[in-house]
Amino acid sequence: MIEFLKKAKESSRIISQLTGKEKNRILFQMANALRKNDKSIVEENKKDMINADKNDLSSALKDRLLLDKSRINAMAIAIEEIAALKEPTGRILDGWITDDDLKIEKVSVPIGVIGIIYESRPNVTSDTAALCFKSGNVCVLKGGKEAQYSNEIIAKCLREVLISNNLPQEIISLLPDATREGVAKLIKMDKFVDLIVPRGGEALIKYISTNSSVPVIKHDKGQCHIYVDRDAKMENVIRIAVNAKCQRPGVCNAMETLLIDESIAKEILPKIKVAFDAEGTLLKGCSKTQKIISVDNATNEDYHTEYLANILNLKVVSDVDEAISHIIEYGSGHSESILSENITTAEKFMNSIDASSVYVNASTRFTDGGAFGFGAEVGISTNKLHARGPMGIEGLTTYKFKIYGNGQSR
Amino acid sequence: MIEFLKKAKESSRIISQLTGKEKNRILFQMANALRKNDKSIVEENKKDMINADKNDLSSALKDRLLLDKSRINAMAIAIEEIAALKEPTGRILDGWITDDDLKIEKVSVPIGVIGIIYESRPNVTSDTAALCFKSGNVCVLKGGKEAQYSNEIIAKCLREVLISNNLPQEIISLLPDATREGVAKLIKMDKFVDLIVPRGGEALIKYISTNSSVPVIKHDKGQCHIYVDRDAKMENVIRIAVNAKCQRPGVCNAMETLLIDESIAKEILPKIKVAFDAEGTLLKGCSKTQKIISVDNATNEDYHTEYLANILNLKVVSDVDEAISHIIEYGSGHSESILSENITTAEKFMNSIDASSVYVNASTRFTDGGAFGFGAEVGISTNKLHARGPMGIEGLTTYKFKIYGNGQSR
Repeated sequence: MIEFLKKAKESSRIISQLTGKEKNRILFQMANALRKNDKSIVEENKKDMINADKNDLSSALKDRLLLDKSRINAMAIAIEEIAALKEPTGRILDGWITDDDLKIEKVSVPIGVIGIIYESRPNVTSDTAALCFKSGNVCVLKGGKEAQYSNEIIAKCLREVLISNNLPQEIISLLPDATREGVAKLIKMDKFVDLIVPRGGEALIKYISTNSSVPVIKHDKGQCHIYVDRDAKMENVIRIAVNAKCQRPGVCNAMETLLIDESIAKEILPKIKVAFDAEGTLLKGCSKTQKIISVDNATNEDYHTEYLANILNLKVVSDVDEAISHIIEYGSGHSESILSENITTAEKFMNSIDASSVYVNASTRFTDGGAFGFGAEVGISTNKLHARGPMGIEGLTTYKFKIYGNGQSR
Repeated sequence: MIEFLKKAKESSRIISQLTGKEKNRILFQMANALRKNDKSIVEENKKDMINADKNDLSSALKDRLLLDKSRINAMAIAIEEIAALKEPTGRILDGWITDDDLKIEKVSVPIGVIGIIYESRPNVTSDTAALCFKSGNVCVLKGGKEAQYSNEIIAKCLREVLISNNLPQEIISLLPDATREGVAKLIKMDKFVDLIVPRGGEALIKYISTNSSVPVIKHDKGQCHIYVDRDAKMENVIRIAVNAKCQRPGVCNAMETLLIDESIAKEILPKIKVAFDAEGTLLKGCSKTQKIISVDNATNEDYHTEYLANILNLKVVSDVDEAISHIIEYGSGHSESILSENITTAEKFMNSIDASSVYVNASTRFTDGGAFGFGAEVGISTNKLHARGPMGIEGLTTYKFKIYGNGQSR
């Protein structure tokens, strides 16, 4: 592993010196390599699908795993879209002249070697490799075992393009020892690896962030709330609440708990019940909720649970302050929204809550690189530092200071 | 410890809601509290000085520890200077309208609870507390045992100001269990602590970054180089080299190795020897150096050593490429400088080397928050992420997205 990571580190110097034009030319070649090899990719993917049947994977997981010609073409298009992004390195982020007449430029640069640990979807392999390549980084990818054959052939296609351009193939690497032990080793290699990005289950992420000596940018839990204030525009409430819960219940920016101001609870809760019943949502509620509509009882544990399913907690709160307190207690700092026409209440909510994304009058589902206009996203960071919330390609860069003197000593 | 950190976390909500005006008023009160209590501070400091004698601390360490009326006044002035900094939170760092007509503001916010681990100088206690307060953060301070009495009385003075303003005293905390075990516990408390900033010995920092589940911003090793290119302006070389090594050999931005282009080695090395001999510097050199001047032999280990003392390695290299390779092999990514009038050589050097600060024609000693014009510095980060190089007060902030909608769902 050390020999391999040494090579990866050395390769990071080489890729960091490529121009934007060179990188884009190679990215287009990579997109075409996927298209040209779509038959072999489908064949290898079949092996994963056979194993999926053997291991009784759910149909949802199998659908995430499946590759066909059109999905492979979509992966190629995604690479081309990444190529079209503005060059993320070499940007002058700030600049000034010091009192000593030094000219300082703060310039964006690649991070170096990035380890990315993820599950299921094989398209993450090509997306992530392309994002890292565009930003001048070496990637060390560790995909899920269930997508092993697919990931290997995709990486092979991309690496062949590197080789034909006289670049070290280590620029796009699969972790050689793709086991739990391999990951345990990788996250201790702070001499060679500059960043670990784990995407996946809570337990895996907890393990990595507790044990890694390499900095980690987590992509984990979203315990998101919407608070319906007494001054909410009623025509918005049902539509936004249903969207936040039901459009894609399995994602991190979906709502788990809807908080309702006591003064409007009697009016709005019956409408909420009708709307969510129509969506087949399992509703749970506090005792005050249960006095108005018939729903299951919501326990303290329920308010802590990221369902990732079509289940919703309801809670009646006396005012915005109780809503804020609830969110501070139960929220995971991901996305929180208030529905209110009152500017003072809305600003109080947005300023009091420490989350990556705080909304007024919109669904929490917008916390997403695409919706934010970032073009392509690395993921949605639940870190507080370096990258927080939707993480675009600039999240894969850091900066250095270039200082121009003319003979200065202190 | 958990009860204490819970309170610290709760206090972070309270301080984050103070206005800039309120924070500045309190900071001025803190400065005055130090001045008013200078007698008691000197008394407590004497206890530390007596222990220092007992424990045979070096006179340099004792000088760092000593507080008198004028040093206490300097600490008060430093707090007032921090109060005068531009408000670091609530700044709109970026903003745009998305395709869905959401208005997004990226706003700077406090990080939360910051644990700071440091040694010796008691003024770090008041500086750090003031920097954290100004940026809306709660600090948990763990100073050196040798400054225990001084740190406790300083913290007490500052906390009394908090109490008199009806603020929780936990906003400025000393780690209750100030032992190695206490630190070991603190760095696992990722539920309550958002950042750990260790300043001090390499072993301590290594221990913390390996074992912390809280993100860490390190302030450690500076293995800094200056490369004298064949196109260097000779009148600059000696002055800058002597400054970089000798002005303060014990700091992280001091030079440890001077690289010299082979084509000018015969001309410049004898002059270098004369200049450094006059400074009492112990010179070591490679075999090529030793053919030109009489110096000790520099071993491979020497090139890896941060001397923090008046000792300098010399090495003759064939060109800028060998200089770059040497720095990639031995540098710690802190500060690297090239002396050259050739724009192509200089840019090659600055772009090829992955360090927080890369210089042309200036001493590495300028890597410093003060010299960069940051006003007050938290330290010099050797991290690559979040804060790299000189770290001003904005390094104690992160950001969140405030999203203004008018009824949007996806």
